[in-house]
This record gives sequence, C-alpha cells and structure tokens, in this order.
Amino acid sequence: MGNVYIGGVSLTKVGEHWDKSLENLLSESAVKCLDASSVSHVDQIIVSNLFGEVFQEQANLGSIAAEELGLSGVPAYRVEAGGVSSLYALAAAYQAVVSGQANSVLVVGVEKMSDASAEEINSLSVAEERCDYLGKIGVTVSAEASLLYKEYMRRYRVSQEEIALFPIMDHEHGSTSSHAQFPFKIKLENILDSPYVAEPIRRLETTAPADGAAAVLICDGDVKLSSPRCLISGLGFATDYPVPTDREDPIELRALKIAVEKALKMAKVTRSDVRMLELYDCFSILAPLSLEASGFAPAGMACKYAAKEAYTLSGQTPVNTFGGLKARGHPIGATGVYQLAEAYLQITEQAGKNQVYGVKTAMVQSLAGLGAGAGAVVLEAE
Amino acid sequence: MGNVYIGGVSLTKVGEHWDKSLENLLSESAVKCLDASSVSHVDQIIVSNLFGEVFQEQANLGSIAAEELGLSGVPAYRVEAGGVSSLYALAAAYQAVVSGQANSVLVVGVEKMSDASAEEINSLSVAEERCDYLGKIGVTVSAEASLLYKEYMRRYRVSQEEIALFPIMDHEHGSTSSHAQFPFKIKLENILDSPYVAEPIRRLETTAPADGAAAVLICDGDVKLSSPRCLISGLGFATDYPVPTDREDPIELRALKIAVEKALKMAKVTRSDVRMLELYDCFSILAPLSLEASGFAPAGMACKYAAKEAYTLSGQTPVNTFGGLKARGHPIGATGVYQLAEAYLQITEQAGKNQVYGVKTAMVQSLAGLGAGAGAVVLEAE
Repeated sequence: MGNVYIGGVSLTKVGEHWDKSLENLLSESAVKCLDASSVSHVDQIIVSNLFGEVFQEQANLGSIAAEELGLSGVPAYRVEAGGVSSLYALAAAYQAVVSGQANSVLVVGVEKMSDASAEEINSLSVAEERCDYLGKIGVTVSAEASLLYKEYMRRYRVSQEEIALFPIMDHEHGSTSSHAQFPFKIKLENILDSPYVAEPIRRLETTAPADGAAAVLICDGDVKLSSPRCLISGLGFATDYPVPTDREDPIELRALKIAVEKALKMAKVTRSDVRMLELYDCFSILAPLSLEASGFAPAGMACKYAAKEAYTLSGQTPVNTFGGLKARGHPIGATGVYQLAEAYLQITEQAGKNQVYGVKTAMVQSLAGLGAGAGAVVLEAE
Repeated sequence: MGNVYIGGVSLTKVGEHWDKSLENLLSESAVKCLDASSVSHVDQIIVSNLFGEVFQEQANLGSIAAEELGLSGVPAYRVEAGGVSSLYALAAAYQAVVSGQANSVLVVGVEKMSDASAEEINSLSVAEERCDYLGKIGVTVSAEASLLYKEYMRRYRVSQEEIALFPIMDHEHGSTSSHAQFPFKIKLENILDSPYVAEPIRRLETTAPADGAAAVLICDGDVKLSSPRCLISGLGFATDYPVPTDREDPIELRALKIAVEKALKMAKVTRSDVRMLELYDCFSILAPLSLEASGFAPAGMACKYAAKEAYTLSGQTPVNTFGGLKARGHPIGATGVYQLAEAYLQITEQAGKNQVYGVKTAMVQSLAGLGAGAGAVVLEAE
C-alpha cells in the first residue's frame, strides 16, 4: 500500500457568518483548499456535516460541493457520525486512496449554526446520543456533562479552578490565531463570573454556536502539489454506549481510549513521539477526561500537568495549539477538519505565531456527544 | 487486491411501522442480517439514512447500531448522499475491506417516514437538490419530475399509457414479494383514475411514505459464513447539477450514464451480461429515463421495449424483480440496500416466486433527487 498524505488545507474564520449560506461556506472553503495546492481536479469529494438537514433543510451536500467547484460529475457524498464526522470522512478518503480507487479526495467540513435558534440547538443536543429516551424527557448534553464534571471533581479531588485552566489555555493559544472565533485571552475570574450553563459548568467553559468550513486535500504520492504535505500514518475509531450513564464508568472515555491505541499502533509511534495534540473539548471537563483516557496523563492528574504548563505551546505536549473548540470555535461537523488542518499547519511549519517547535508527529482526537464515538488520527512529517 | 462479497442480507417488510421506532427498525434488520450468515462480529458498521435527523431528531446512528447489536466499541458511522446513500455506503464498505482495514463491514439502511407529516415530506423533497433556490420558492421534486415527464412525451411522442407500463410491471413483480409495501397488481385504469400529484404524474406513478430497513454484510474471502455469497465486481458513481433545469439536457440522466459506464468497466462485463437490473423509479418517468441513460434501451425506446415484455421476470433484462420503488416501496435512505439485497437473493437463487432464471450478473442503480447524483453496482455469482 502506498502512502497517503494531506496535501493542502483551507480554514475559514469561525464566527457567525450572517452574510453567507451553508453552500457559500462549503464552496469557498473547497475552492480555497484546491487553490492552496494548485490542484484543479479531484477524484472524489467527501463532505462532513452534522445539522444541515435540520437547520438549512439541505441534504446531499456532496452534489452541491461538486457543482460549486465546477467539478460536477465527480463522485461526492456526506459522512456523519456526530462530532466524529470529520475524522470518519478522512478515514473514508484514506481508504479510497489506499484501495487505488482514487488518487485524490477533497474532504470538506461545514456547519452553519447561526441559522438555528438556541432552542433548536439545545433540543438537538442529544441527537448524537439517544433521542428516543433522552431527548423526549428534555435531558441536554450540558446537563449530562455537568454530572461527569461533578463526579470527576469528587473522585479526584480536583477543583473547578483547576479544570478551568483548560479554557484559559485555549484562549491563550487562540488569541494569536487568525481563524479563531474568540481570539482573546480570558482569566479565571472571567470564567467564574460567567453564568451557569448547567451547574457547575460556566458559560466560558463551553462553546458557542458557530459557522465555519475547512477543507483538507487527501492524495497519494503521485499527485503534483504546490504546497507541502504531511503523512497520514494512523487512524483509529471506536464507539461506546451513546449515553454516558449507561457505561460502567461514565467518566472513562473508553471509545477514545480504544481509538487512540489503534491509531498509535497503526502509525507505529508512541505517546512520547506525539509533539502536539488536538483535543475535542466542547466542555472544559472533556480536556482532562480526554488526556487521561488517551494516556497523556494519569487518571486525575491532567489538571496538575496543565498547572505545570505541560500543554502550552512550549510545553512537553502542546495541546489545542490554535485555541481548541473553546477559542477557535466549534462548527460541529467541520470541527475535525479544522483540527486536521491545524495539525497540518504545525507539521509543515506554517503555524505562524502559534508554531510549536519541531512537530514531526501530531495527533487529532474527536468525540461524538460525550464519548458515544471517538476517532484519533496520527499525522507525521514526511 | 482480494475479492469482496455480499455474504448475507436481511429485508424488513416495507410499510408503516407505527409500533416501531427508527432505532427498532435499524437494530432488528442489523441483527437479522448477522444471524442470516451466522456472523457474530463485524469490524465496522456503516448506516445509510437520509431523514432521521429531521423526522426523529436522531443523528449518529452508527453508535446506536453498534450498541443495539451488542457490538459497542466497533467503529460506526453514517453515509448520506440523498437517494444514493446506500450505494455510497456499500462503496465505503468495499474500500474498507479492499484496503485491508476491515475483514467484514455491516451496511444497514434505515428510514422511518411515517413519523413525518405529508407537509414535512413535501417541504423536504428538494433537500437532495438545492434548498437555497428551489425550496424557498416552493418547488417540489414532483413538480420538476412532471416537467421531465412532459418533455419526454413531447420529444419521443410517447404517451402516458406507455410510461405507465412501468408501475404496472412493478406491481406485477411486487405482488409475489413478501417484503413489498404494496404487494398487489394494478391496471392501467387504476393509474389513470388516480389523482394527480403534479400533472401529468398520477398518484400510482410515484411512491408513498415508507418505513423500512435492510442490511447487507460485506466481507472478504476469509470470513466464515453459513450463507451463500455473491461478488461485488463493479462500482460507479457520479454527480450532476442538482437541479435538472440547470443541465444541458434535463431529461438526460448524465450522472447515471457515467456511473453505469464506470461500474461496467470495473466489473469487465457488458450490458448483455446483465441478467437483472434494479432501477430507481420513484416516479414512473425515471424508469425509461434510467434505462435509456444507462444504455439498456435506445433514446425514446424504453416503453416500446417494455410493451414487448423485455423487462419482465422472463424477459431479456428483468427489471425491478421485487417491485421496484413503486411496489416494494421506497424508504429512501434504505432503498439502495433493499435493491442490493434483492440482487443478492436473485444471484444466490433465494428469490422464491420472483426468481429470475440464471442470474450470474446483476446491476443496481440509485439516484439522488432527479439525477443530482447516481450510483451503479455490479454484482456477480462466484
């Protein structure tokens, strides 16, 4: 089997794009990505999107992407797995290339949440878990996350002030990113002064509705590019019981644990090789839970490590180098593509003010819901 | 590259399953499929579904399928491309197996339309095309299909009575199928007496809302099965401008034409080898348009061939051998899996009263919208 690469990326500034439709965001990002690599044709397009059917009443985004790119004819479809949609889209692109059925595949992630009301977003929050027995009784994902938060604090005697180190770090990193939704720093008191979303989770510990689109070009070694490339060396995926309280240990992200093991094994690298890590921290509590499930901190120790700056840009394992879900922003179906594009920028030394020194190996992690599914991808310098 | 097979299938009777949820339909079908092959584990699950997010507010069906099968942990995601969702799901499964990343993949298609009102279904009918400039002005797919119908009648001097031969044949074939939604025969006068959906399209020339689920097990040659298997030998996909009136010739299904050529080329077979054909006839007019676009009849001649019984079970190229979308029923995101399962039953000689003699090679075709996308799959006896 030949090598498979990310050969170019594009990133739209995350925000509320009142002047653009879902289709606009999708097509602009797709065009920019191909332009970045001076590639004019791809063999396939895979779109990652979660809520377009509900918020915009638009399905079949693959055909729309093909039309907008002037590539009508090219096979195109959408992948959806909640918050892991983007990484599954990448895996499908990888398999299309490795199987010899395509030389190049464009993966575009897009989401436009500003078209929806807060009520709609809240009501759909358990769509990634089980609508049949959670949604109907009005449980939201924020409410569930607050239970995990409390149990984590209780079990490991960790304070909210310690967990809040992660959103503070996210904003520190996001403050110098040109594509971040919230490119400013925040302090602990800002978090503690912000209103509850679901006690003890404060508003500055979670994400806001976001519009965004990002794209990555996946290709084999024969595709001519004007841009640098990085190697896709490891892929791992797993599911878990969609509802956390159905699990043996609700605060263990078992799907992520399995996905990370698989990805490391496939890439034949160890955790100490991983020089930057993108976490899926749509709630602050998911940062320590993810680090611990994936073996980048012992159980209950992630916040202690964070206090020692282990995860800053100059730390041992820099985390969320462009601000993570909190500061870069979280356009759900596109988030994983942003994460992949950010890892690519680091490996190819195009990260500007956010550059981490000497990133040869990076890992991207995504979650559906609160661990209903997980994906991990290892990217490496050539 | 090794061979990839369909190793077992399951088919739920299409209908209005008031007593079952989307999740019930999905899991029952998945379990039955694995049971049919005596397989207890798969490496991956791919779900094909179109409207679950809207009608049931349920996304991330992959994780739900894994949980319900007792296979929590197994990677799982959803594929969506309008009416071609199922065939793209099959292609993704094929690539996962061919690339060596999986030995076995379960593809489950599911749709539950009885939860939605007629208004919702009508409003979402252009979700597979372009909501941004069709949906907002109230154009429905039925209205567009009526334009194609009229243009076809005008250009080739074909009458409605001739086009109606296809739904009559669908019901003839569906009348002996145990999983068909409408297992009865209809006559020309029934069609012409039924009300208009969009003139000249009569109600008995299109489909009704449907609930259904079907599954196919995709595997390599090493997986031990208790069921017979058939070979997946050709896959072809293409997109087109989503809205028919944007195309150079609105009544030419160009995406299907390309997809069929690709699938035949990959399978190294000719049209005369194809001994049964599953069409995507959600409107009667799509039957002749599909046959002509894919080269199974010269332009304007499909109805003449139908009159000579070329497409009946004992004809030259039997079409829609279990009733097609009209009589078997059309649970959109699951329809392609039904088509694949039906072709499998024919090839493995399990088609009962609907058995076509000596099917060594079969083709399945699906469309998104009115040709916004298309897929074609060639299946062969071992």
